[in-house]
Amino acid sequence: MPSSTPRDLLIHARWVVPIEPRGAVLEDHSIVVQAGRIEAILPREQASAIPARQVLERPAHAVLPGFVNAHAHAAMTLLRGAAAGRPLEPWLRQVVWPLESRLVDADFVRDGTEQAIAEMLLGGTTCFADMYFFPEVVAQLASDLGMRAAVAVPVLDVPTVWAATIDEYLDKGLRLADEYRGHPLVHTFFALHSPALSTDATLARVRTLADQLDAPVMIHLLESADDAARERSRHGIDPVDRLERAGLVNNLLVAVHCVHLDEAGIGRFADVGASVVHCPTSNLKLASGIAPVAAMRAAGLNVALGSDGSASNDRLDMLSEARLAALLAAGATGDAAAVGAAEALEMATLGGARAMGLDAGIGSLVPGKWADLCCVDLGKVSVQPVIDVLESLLHSASRADVSDVWVAGRQLVEDATLLRIDTASLRARTNRWQSRVLAARNSLPGN
Amino acid sequence: MPSSTPRDLLIHARWVVPIEPRGAVLEDHSIVVQAGRIEAILPREQASAIPARQVLERPAHAVLPGFVNAHAHAAMTLLRGAAAGRPLEPWLRQVVWPLESRLVDADFVRDGTEQAIAEMLLGGTTCFADMYFFPEVVAQLASDLGMRAAVAVPVLDVPTVWAATIDEYLDKGLRLADEYRGHPLVHTFFALHSPALSTDATLARVRTLADQLDAPVMIHLLESADDAARERSRHGIDPVDRLERAGLVNNLLVAVHCVHLDEAGIGRFADVGASVVHCPTSNLKLASGIAPVAAMRAAGLNVALGSDGSASNDRLDMLSEARLAALLAAGATGDAAAVGAAEALEMATLGGARAMGLDAGIGSLVPGKWADLCCVDLGKVSVQPVIDVLESLLHSASRADVSDVWVAGRQLVEDATLLRIDTASLRARTNRWQSRVLAARNSLPGN
Repeated sequence: MPSSTPRDLLIHARWVVPIEPRGAVLEDHSIVVQAGRIEAILPREQASAIPARQVLERPAHAVLPGFVNAHAHAAMTLLRGAAAGRPLEPWLRQVVWPLESRLVDADFVRDGTEQAIAEMLLGGTTCFADMYFFPEVVAQLASDLGMRAAVAVPVLDVPTVWAATIDEYLDKGLRLADEYRGHPLVHTFFALHSPALSTDATLARVRTLADQLDAPVMIHLLESADDAARERSRHGIDPVDRLERAGLVNNLLVAVHCVHLDEAGIGRFADVGASVVHCPTSNLKLASGIAPVAAMRAAGLNVALGSDGSASNDRLDMLSEARLAALLAAGATGDAAAVGAAEALEMATLGGARAMGLDAGIGSLVPGKWADLCCVDLGKVSVQPVIDVLESLLHSASRADVSDVWVAGRQLVEDATLLRIDTASLRARTNRWQSRVLAARNSLPGN
Repeated sequence: MPSSTPRDLLIHARWVVPIEPRGAVLEDHSIVVQAGRIEAILPREQASAIPARQVLERPAHAVLPGFVNAHAHAAMTLLRGAAAGRPLEPWLRQVVWPLESRLVDADFVRDGTEQAIAEMLLGGTTCFADMYFFPEVVAQLASDLGMRAAVAVPVLDVPTVWAATIDEYLDKGLRLADEYRGHPLVHTFFALHSPALSTDATLARVRTLADQLDAPVMIHLLESADDAARERSRHGIDPVDRLERAGLVNNLLVAVHCVHLDEAGIGRFADVGASVVHCPTSNLKLASGIAPVAAMRAAGLNVALGSDGSASNDRLDMLSEARLAALLAAGATGDAAAVGAAEALEMATLGGARAMGLDAGIGSLVPGKWADLCCVDLGKVSVQPVIDVLESLLHSASRADVSDVWVAGRQLVEDATLLRIDTASLRARTNRWQSRVLAARNSLPGN
């Protein structure tokens, strides 16, 4: 680079955790950001000669790629804590669906998603894959707020407030995909609710469209044991076989949960380069179980991490998800090294980027990728001493220790404070929804 | 109370979560504190007429009893992150014991314990049961800093830096118990490392002394599957039977971990009023497994929560432990309601107080008990909206949301800042230990 031209931003960090190569920790290194992208990562002494318009000192901090939340239903923040103590099916049918049918509209989605983006940014998440209604509202909001998002075209064989027929779902979805083609922040993909709620014809149509657009296809798969048995009895075929018959088991598949995916299924997904999104908190809270993540990774399957929605996971906190993924893998396998700190942090970043087909641009700190950055203060009292940086980052630090966040080089969080969200306005709106949700919940049968 | 005499402290809180009765949430209530104790809990409109020397408004906060960490090795903060990726036995034998033998002395214990107290207070913990060497240093420090502690007399059938023989352990321990008899903050109990490291003669002596002093007896029990098998092969008897033969299965027993305690053992412990300390993070990290907490609670057994030491759990964070306990119970049993938010918060407070025989004075917000209080700000961005207070407290709030902490009516944390610990001095000392621990670890074989 011509050393006389000032660069946009220079961050001198105590540690840089680039995620690639796995396990690397660069001490006293600096990140050069230019035109929204990472230009270079250099030892501090080399970087300090580079002129820059903004120079930041982060002397007790680790800078890593922003987290990629690979499975969210962002607007469901407004249903946080509304449905506790129920397993998947009663949770859906007795509380979540009835509340959604009464409450969800474009305003619900806008306010709930803004609340989710606020929470995710404060916790270091710079990209989320969202699966909900009114995706055009989510896309516009993410673009307005400077957040990176992969926004699903939801495809359901049941009518909802957003679309009445499969044709309407797909027409609206294709317009959305068209509108955001080439957008620097907003990406689109297809989302099927589950095999149970999709006809063979729908699976086939989505497969064709996804292939044409080279877009990921996300689907909830084998979340609970009941789920698995019900799908088999309904369609007379194993759900993985059914997806395969529809041509959907390929490198565009993003299978969410997979708590009950067996060894054969793991092998088939690994062979074709599909991805799994592990949602450990949600799977525990809904009593679904523990996904065989160590076996998936051993088979070479790409595993991403997701928060799921706030009605089954009261925090959109990727650092917590990564920590829990590592702890559960050890506890479930009896191998304390099943998923190490480096692997858990990789799942929470690059794993999600790979699942969503975005790893050429995000997921690790590599020159040329977008400057989607998360800076964690390891200097707080409760984190001392720091003997092993990756262990401290994963297990001792908390989302509250995230000090700064950038998306595409634009700073969205500074000193643990949101720079581009009007939190007072947001609070007023979430307060109003709080009253409406409480009233609606209290009017449900059995509540 | 005579309304003309000013009371010491009046806290007007949005919510009071007294833990007793279970699940209660008192909205717009106030806590009256006098002479270190809770004098009354009243609706705000009644309390506002009471004159007080200090009146605090906590308009978006929940006040609950301070957490009781029922199993800590506090000084091990200095070994945080030093031994990751190993299961229990290699973790102990290849890293923890070799490091301890090189490093542990009274200074290590003083500095490591001060670091632990700082971290615990910032996270809302007001009492910890500690099991380590140099308990006289821990007791003095807790008393100096105003922290409540139950400090173990460690009893091991192996010589350590603190004592060479069983006689020396017990002589020193009895002097300690004598010195702190009737102390308002510091309590003492006996701690056996494990059945494997205790002779029958030692079990018998501890039983006699504990009965005389009416002091709890803590012991690591059935932590790993290996552990259980090894103890059986070594002593030719099930470890629970061996404790029973020694007369130790009674209401003073505090059995830590119990990951592999079977149904019969659960029943026997429940029958006599013994307690179990569940350490969910540590049990996962060391790949020991998941303790059958739902079955224990269903049997009527008192379950407390513990962090364990920082070498197997990189955070001394009782809110995290309580959350994980609830999530794991659901995931492991298939019952999403196995351990609800009210139950998890009870385990983290009253459960620990009961285990340590301290529930007449702490563990719930009841007039007459000590004012050991933790105040959590539920008004932060990432916690909105609050539909269900206990769910939000357990699952959405974090230790970083703890705003204020009092022990026996004395404020130790205000605005998430430690009032009585010199954090600069502490940091200088933990930094020095960080270098020493790193050097010692790097000199171990295989590192």
